[in-house]
Amino acid sequence: MIQTPYLLFLGDAPDMLAAKVAIGIRDWRPENAVGQFRMPGCGADLGLTDMTLSAARDAGARTLVIGVANRGGVISPRWKEVLLQALAMGYDLASGLHNLLRNEADLVAAAREHGRTLHDVRIPSVQYPIANGEKRRGKRCLAVGTDCAVGKMYTAMAMERDMTARGLKATFRATGQTGILITGEGVPLDAVIADFMAGSIEYLTPDNEADHWDMIEGQGSLFHVSYSGVTLALIHGGQPDALILCHEPTRTHMRGLPGYALPTLEQLRDTALPLARVANPDCRVAGISVNTQHMSEADARAYLDEVSQRMDLPATDPYRFGSDVLVDALAAI
Amino acid sequence: MIQTPYLLFLGDAPDMLAAKVAIGIRDWRPENAVGQFRMPGCGADLGLTDMTLSAARDAGARTLVIGVANRGGVISPRWKEVLLQALAMGYDLASGLHNLLRNEADLVAAAREHGRTLHDVRIPSVQYPIANGEKRRGKRCLAVGTDCAVGKMYTAMAMERDMTARGLKATFRATGQTGILITGEGVPLDAVIADFMAGSIEYLTPDNEADHWDMIEGQGSLFHVSYSGVTLALIHGGQPDALILCHEPTRTHMRGLPGYALPTLEQLRDTALPLARVANPDCRVAGISVNTQHMSEADARAYLDEVSQRMDLPATDPYRFGSDVLVDALAAI
Repeated sequence: MIQTPYLLFLGDAPDMLAAKVAIGIRDWRPENAVGQFRMPGCGADLGLTDMTLSAARDAGARTLVIGVANRGGVISPRWKEVLLQALAMGYDLASGLHNLLRNEADLVAAAREHGRTLHDVRIPSVQYPIANGEKRRGKRCLAVGTDCAVGKMYTAMAMERDMTARGLKATFRATGQTGILITGEGVPLDAVIADFMAGSIEYLTPDNEADHWDMIEGQGSLFHVSYSGVTLALIHGGQPDALILCHEPTRTHMRGLPGYALPTLEQLRDTALPLARVANPDCRVAGISVNTQHMSEADARAYLDEVSQRMDLPATDPYRFGSDVLVDALAAI
Repeated sequence: MIQTPYLLFLGDAPDMLAAKVAIGIRDWRPENAVGQFRMPGCGADLGLTDMTLSAARDAGARTLVIGVANRGGVISPRWKEVLLQALAMGYDLASGLHNLLRNEADLVAAAREHGRTLHDVRIPSVQYPIANGEKRRGKRCLAVGTDCAVGKMYTAMAMERDMTARGLKATFRATGQTGILITGEGVPLDAVIADFMAGSIEYLTPDNEADHWDMIEGQGSLFHVSYSGVTLALIHGGQPDALILCHEPTRTHMRGLPGYALPTLEQLRDTALPLARVANPDCRVAGISVNTQHMSEADARAYLDEVSQRMDLPATDPYRFGSDVLVDALAAI
């Protein structure tokens, strides 16, 4: 578990696109960020207070989170200088970069010297068990997609926020690097050894109060041949009580697979639900989340109405129109 | 790739049950074994020539294969003595044990000194790619099961043998430790990182001649919640042209999961085939392989007749009755 609150390191990020992780933290866990740290030439700005390492430390920051992607797969000397200074000042470091903090000898030495922790959230830090399939108390909801990157994390995050606002018990459960950095904990499922994938999700979503919902972050798609195994492990390890079907209607082929068409929402329902019922016979499809960012508002509303009628399920774009209709559906389970 | 032929190390195995790997090599690749090496007190006997290390080396053996399970998760000093001697005499070592050869400092030092290789087949030795889903030339057949350990490896091995005997082009493709040690190569799929599972199977079954069949070893089951993700990665990475449905009719629950009933062969067909068609729209179910070891011959034949009629597919127990009807079905594709 990563110590909060954070100071968000934006480094010399060229633009906001490079700052996806930091944006996620600001949007979903603003209470986790005391401010932002920008270097000369930084083209990203989260609108948070610019802080020095010492000012942020005085404001309570415990961990410097690398909230940006780096270029060329190396941690630059300019970054290194700040990271070493942070360790010396008592910060832990957290990163989702492909090149690991733990592979940098100077960072390792400084962390040891100052008794700090280097969190590489791309790598599991736990020896997960093999799944035992035993029924757990509490409820679980999983977002499944017709494709990768259609808004599954956003959907679970938005629902958690709206459920909490209504006084319902809900916890977002991160299964990817961004989600882990946002919330400070989770399972980096794509880096887990095959035999332990489902077990890692059982570990992530343990017994809980009967009226508590784990909102599990989805990964991949049953229809994406590169990652479908990860998705099925999520379904069987998570033993969800409810599925949310996620879709992006304007996509012309599966992400990264030009020869593969997207399935329909009906195909997704008819594939995912029987598989989910292997682990939880009471599982049902609770609703539909559509990423309408490439549609006009009128088109988006018309699409949502049509698909909701056609499939007899509540449908929304939680980013554009809120997640209320999906939360209503969960609350009724 | 492990250098053949092998000398099969049986050590001080208490009985034949402990010698599963060595039995597999003897049964499926007898040409890969020049003999067996037994220590005092060994209760296993493959019926092969007992050989000393030097006699086997003179007979051409290149690798000493640990063909037995060890006790208590340690490599005993008695074993160690033989393994060190073998390295000094020019053998490579190959092992599927959980405790790795590479974690034994004395073996590592001896291998380095003598320029030999330690093969731990539980651990991938290749950096596999992420699957790209591109259609490959040649044909592929995958055995899928209603449960784990219902005879999927045996089915693929038997079909490869019978196809080769008929002059058909076929290659068994190992995806587990035993299969890798038997054939000398393959992918230890259960130890592959989640994101690379499907890619490892694409790597294992590359472009080939149009009339060549890769007979891919199955793993897990779509209905086994602990390992189903591994199975789906096999289906999507292997993009099979043909599926063989494997079943053990007397089993009362899923292996290791007392609360889970087995699916029917119809459920397996109706789940696996649509998923397989995501990667290969031409995929079909070619036949049924039934493990009838717990049934009388009369009951077995009656069961096979009934299921073959009911599902309109050839059905056999390849161990008991040969795989001919399944090979006929593949040859007709």
